[in-house]
Amino acid sequence: MDFASDNTAGASQPILASVLATNEGAAPAYGQDSLTAKAGRLLEDVFERKIASFLVNTGTAANALALGAISPPFGAIFCHMQAHVMEDECGAPEMFTGGAKLIGIAGRAGKIAPADFKSVLADFPRGLEKQVQPAALSLSQVTESGTIYTCMELAELTALAHDAGLMVHMDGARFANALVSLQCTPAEMSWKAGIDVLSFGATKNGALACEAVIFFDPLKAAGLPFQRKRSGHTLSKGRFLGAQMAAYLENGHWLDLAVRANDQARRLARGLTKIPGVRMPWPCEANEVFAILPGAIDAALKAGGALYYPWKFRDGSHDCPPPAKDEVFVRLVTSYATLPSDVDGFMTLAMTAGRERI
Amino acid sequence: MDFASDNTAGASQPILASVLATNEGAAPAYGQDSLTAKAGRLLEDVFERKIASFLVNTGTAANALALGAISPPFGAIFCHMQAHVMEDECGAPEMFTGGAKLIGIAGRAGKIAPADFKSVLADFPRGLEKQVQPAALSLSQVTESGTIYTCMELAELTALAHDAGLMVHMDGARFANALVSLQCTPAEMSWKAGIDVLSFGATKNGALACEAVIFFDPLKAAGLPFQRKRSGHTLSKGRFLGAQMAAYLENGHWLDLAVRANDQARRLARGLTKIPGVRMPWPCEANEVFAILPGAIDAALKAGGALYYPWKFRDGSHDCPPPAKDEVFVRLVTSYATLPSDVDGFMTLAMTAGRERI
Amino acid sequence: MDFASDNTAGASQPILASVLATNEGAAPAYGQDSLTAKAGRLLEDVFERKIASFLVNTGTAANALALGAISPPFGAIFCHMQAHVMEDECGAPEMFTGGAKLIGIAGRAGKIAPADFKSVLADFPRGLEKQVQPAALSLSQVTESGTIYTCMELAELTALAHDAGLMVHMDGARFANALVSLQCTPAEMSWKAGIDVLSFGATKNGALACEAVIFFDPLKAAGLPFQRKRSGHTLSKGRFLGAQMAAYLENGHWLDLAVRANDQARRLARGLTKIPGVRMPWPCEANEVFAILPGAIDAALKAGGALYYPWKFRDGSHDCPPPAKDEVFVRLVTSYATLPSDVDGFMTLAMTAGRERI
Amino acid sequence: MDFASDNTAGASQPILASVLATNEGAAPAYGQDSLTAKAGRLLEDVFERKIASFLVNTGTAANALALGAISPPFGAIFCHMQAHVMEDECGAPEMFTGGAKLIGIAGRAGKIAPADFKSVLADFPRGLEKQVQPAALSLSQVTESGTIYTCMELAELTALAHDAGLMVHMDGARFANALVSLQCTPAEMSWKAGIDVLSFGATKNGALACEAVIFFDPLKAAGLPFQRKRSGHTLSKGRFLGAQMAAYLENGHWLDLAVRANDQARRLARGLTKIPGVRMPWPCEANEVFAILPGAIDAALKAGGALYYPWKFRDGSHDCPPPAKDEVFVRLVTSYATLPSDVDGFMTLAMTAGRERI
Repeated sequence: MDFASDNTAGASQPILASVLATNEGAAPAYGQDSLTAKAGRLLEDVFERKIASFLVNTGTAANALALGAISPPFGAIFCHMQAHVMEDECGAPEMFTGGAKLIGIAGRAGKIAPADFKSVLADFPRGLEKQVQPAALSLSQVTESGTIYTCMELAELTALAHDAGLMVHMDGARFANALVSLQCTPAEMSWKAGIDVLSFGATKNGALACEAVIFFDPLKAAGLPFQRKRSGHTLSKGRFLGAQMAAYLENGHWLDLAVRANDQARRLARGLTKIPGVRMPWPCEANEVFAILPGAIDAALKAGGALYYPWKFRDGSHDCPPPAKDEVFVRLVTSYATLPSDVDGFMTLAMTAGRERI
Repeated sequence: MDFASDNTAGASQPILASVLATNEGAAPAYGQDSLTAKAGRLLEDVFERKIASFLVNTGTAANALALGAISPPFGAIFCHMQAHVMEDECGAPEMFTGGAKLIGIAGRAGKIAPADFKSVLADFPRGLEKQVQPAALSLSQVTESGTIYTCMELAELTALAHDAGLMVHMDGARFANALVSLQCTPAEMSWKAGIDVLSFGATKNGALACEAVIFFDPLKAAGLPFQRKRSGHTLSKGRFLGAQMAAYLENGHWLDLAVRANDQARRLARGLTKIPGVRMPWPCEANEVFAILPGAIDAALKAGGALYYPWKFRDGSHDCPPPAKDEVFVRLVTSYATLPSDVDGFMTLAMTAGRERI
Repeated sequence: MDFASDNTAGASQPILASVLATNEGAAPAYGQDSLTAKAGRLLEDVFERKIASFLVNTGTAANALALGAISPPFGAIFCHMQAHVMEDECGAPEMFTGGAKLIGIAGRAGKIAPADFKSVLADFPRGLEKQVQPAALSLSQVTESGTIYTCMELAELTALAHDAGLMVHMDGARFANALVSLQCTPAEMSWKAGIDVLSFGATKNGALACEAVIFFDPLKAAGLPFQRKRSGHTLSKGRFLGAQMAAYLENGHWLDLAVRANDQARRLARGLTKIPGVRMPWPCEANEVFAILPGAIDAALKAGGALYYPWKFRDGSHDCPPPAKDEVFVRLVTSYATLPSDVDGFMTLAMTAGRERI
Repeated sequence: MDFASDNTAGASQPILASVLATNEGAAPAYGQDSLTAKAGRLLEDVFERKIASFLVNTGTAANALALGAISPPFGAIFCHMQAHVMEDECGAPEMFTGGAKLIGIAGRAGKIAPADFKSVLADFPRGLEKQVQPAALSLSQVTESGTIYTCMELAELTALAHDAGLMVHMDGARFANALVSLQCTPAEMSWKAGIDVLSFGATKNGALACEAVIFFDPLKAAGLPFQRKRSGHTLSKGRFLGAQMAAYLENGHWLDLAVRANDQARRLARGLTKIPGVRMPWPCEANEVFAILPGAIDAALKAGGALYYPWKFRDGSHDCPPPAKDEVFVRLVTSYATLPSDVDGFMTLAMTAGRERI
């Protein structure tokens, strides 16, 4: 019953098998191997166009390299106030851009509202020397609140950004989970919606450690090979990254994995709504469930061995009242490896405790 | 017959098996898992003292994080002119230090002579505002020329550095190959010889992608967790790094791997010395052989399928005359995966071509 | 009638005379001259203790060098949301710290409330790897809203900072204006109140271009000479900086200048309160007056040749309702060079227009 | 008899008078004043074309801002081994480029030979990920050895650079001294010879503290206003920079000043050649004289009150044998303020000591 995060699981069998298979014999180093090439082709198939793609080990590296490519040191990068790039990467975007400024925008349920983005943009007139210059918009899909932008919403935000001369980055650490939820194509949820650069995550969805930075306009990627190298992210035995990404994409494996994760999250959410006293500030739209639990239920779950993290409740970003003194706000994350029995076990504990409460 | 590099091989079976074994079940993320803890303990056993160790994916990351911890942005970092940190990392040390300056020191066979270091140090008087300030010495063990510093030589250089207030870093991408060649203890070749921070490589010697940054004085490592995170080098599923390093160290596996690589290099070197017309500018001291080959031999080897890279001959760093017009200067690298039959095949091709030449 | 800023005035006569006087003959370069030494001694007299002081040309340089000395690249620097370092320096602190993050704290009248600082600090637990680490608090005295912290308020904030292991910087671009308003000693308003590093401004108060970075603990300044040099802020003909600062401090000249500026601001504020329809969101505590003017008065003032800038009204930071449609929010700044007749002329225009309005 | 440097003199009377004159009344801040505009127009007149110019206080700032605009963080900047940007700016280019690498090229008399530049360029093949990428060539005119490139020599080097896709910077801290020596036009010695960005110095030649960064293609300067601001180099009372540069350029004042400095240097050089035992490794081509003095002469000069610095003799960069044990290698610099009587006094001391020696 581990709902702590989707990175506490290992790798899926097909991905692990691919790593094993590629281990035999010699292969050119530094990403010049055939598996990395294959991964690049598969990514182009998936996104239905020519791209420039770069494999790295972590989402933070993918995000920071992406932002470093689209913002000068004196740039302003707009993102949600609670975005991963803002709060959880210890200043990686600042390091890779040479000191750009992230401007956090408040917004309900982890999402930036177009009107708010417009108004914040207005505070940064271009050309005013004393201010950092608007350079990029970074959107998280899935958001930090487990919610999802529709393709229309993405398009509206990216249009505002492009009109103001900004490039748009998508932090797609959970790209697959959003995609199977929206039931659209990868192209529709990225470049067709105005995304310029994408951090395409695989780690949380079944890889060992593999993400791709994807430039839909390959010309913008001219400096990336060098920035990747000098930041220490060009793997010596690059075939192991290629092997992961190729297996991830082949035969729709990545979508299957995401469907599994999302299904269990939905079951969890559905179950929780039935328990009196449990409230959910946001809808469950991908593989995360956020819930305010009565303290007694929380205690029973923990006593029963369930793992999950408390979450921070911030005023103004939820549609429900804050947790009371005897309540706990928590995040529950499912992964491809979450079993129906994990959810069942969790629900049994919660329901029993819920019943006793009354 | 792949002698291109020691990173064209895959991972050793025990290391791969360890990765497989750790895949089962859930584990805490970001290096809080038990295997990473075990790797840390094994490293302390190996080095016979308390250390602070940090696992990362690449040698460039290890070097750059290490140097970033011991040099301010206005620092001077002294290293051999052909050091990996100087020539092969696309400016990673500059990025991680915030712009420090690497000062290349010339030296025979890839090694810095104490007298030369002393004289270069004299050019950088402390406190002169217009000059970067001496901060660190970085030594490569094995060097870029495949040679090795003795523990005495290391001690002499580190004493000069310490006397001048510098910290000393060792780029140990091939630490194991040097160690089994010197037949000393890891402690003797590192902190007992005055090394303060070590990039301890495993990738080239049988891991998939795993290196450790090791601080012998843990207090110096206070900023490392944050610098690792913000440079994107804190792995989400950190257990996979722990699994590699633990398997690498257990039961002396790492030493066995290095012995294998060195043995084949020695066989290669011994064979080459017997071929008329072949010259070797430096002794083979670890798992690399540098040779000047007659063009005809080079052609026959390539035609026969041998893989290796040409190398750059630089005046003043060799004990033999430069390659003539019809000669080629090459580097041959063996790894734990090099088979005796690879070396035999190579030698047969070379000897046949050598005989025909006469 | 120039109330645009206190940097639209030239230099005071004694300061200009000092520059002229030092022009004769040769003097050692790069701040090794006798006038720079004298300025250093005078600063020690003024602050009643040993300090390390560094003269530079701009307030942005002073602030950025100071913050760069007390925050690592992975640091969090707390400041008011509208602080100059946050909004008006185009990312200079980010550049000089190597990418630290500025955390803006909301607060009425440009001031940070201790309770708010405490609560924001609580959001940045030390040691959490994914977060930038609390490193510094930067306080502006005079604030961006023209208000002033009392010495007690400063002490309360710096105590919170020190308890949490942070260093405290004061942006004293208008240090003199605050000082003569508080009628305390420079020591009381700085190190005795817990300030560790001070940007001590002279430019806005009568110099041509001269500020000092002051470290009350000289040991913290070890890197400053080199950071100043490599940021291009070590003046070749340094005597011209020394000449300005020495003349600024001698015989209390700097205090006289500030008294003049503050006096005219107070007259301006007093006059404005008497005009019906004029509202002032904050008290005038130094040399700045912020006012909401009826549109007709604003128009008449501009037509009459008065110069000043509109200001941005932000909800939650004022004690009065926002400007209505026919009102304008403006900032009026006086300087040592503002003449009583400037204020009189301004008031006559305003009062006439105010009367006509009714 | 101060020959220590050309920055030990004060400012020329016309420049000082201009600063005084502009002090009256109010003027827009941050370089929006009329004098800065005038300086910009005068620079365009002088260089006979549209340019983008930015005034700053120091040569280090000018050089670093210029290089930051033409090299990415992963760039290689080629310059002479003893160039000011390499040895005397404490890593400013590294700071402003975000960590680019300066590649020093050896060369006689402070000059880079085209053949050497070509050969060094060949060591940096474009696109090799592990290497920094060739981005810029920086040439010093006057060089650190007091010598001058002819316009033909400049054109040859810039053509090589441009053919390899590099931009070319000129460090013209002593631009005027070189110009009056070559007797060509400013355009001929800069953009007509292939220079893309110029640090145009005035400080050493009679200003208080004023240099211009000049982009001959204004489009390349898009980021400069922001980089200048965030590095703290946008002066608040910008009129004082405008006043200096305008007076410097008006009526050919700058050329008169340089002629004076060069004349005295030539007299000094001519005099020294007549003293037995004095050798000069390089010709005197601008306002610097480098000489190897017999110890007795050196001692007599110092005893007589002459000021100058010892210089470093580096093998391979001179056309004469190194100083013997009883000889001293020194640099003598003249400025616009050097009086014929200073030179006469110096020569008398030297000749007397020279005669006694024999």
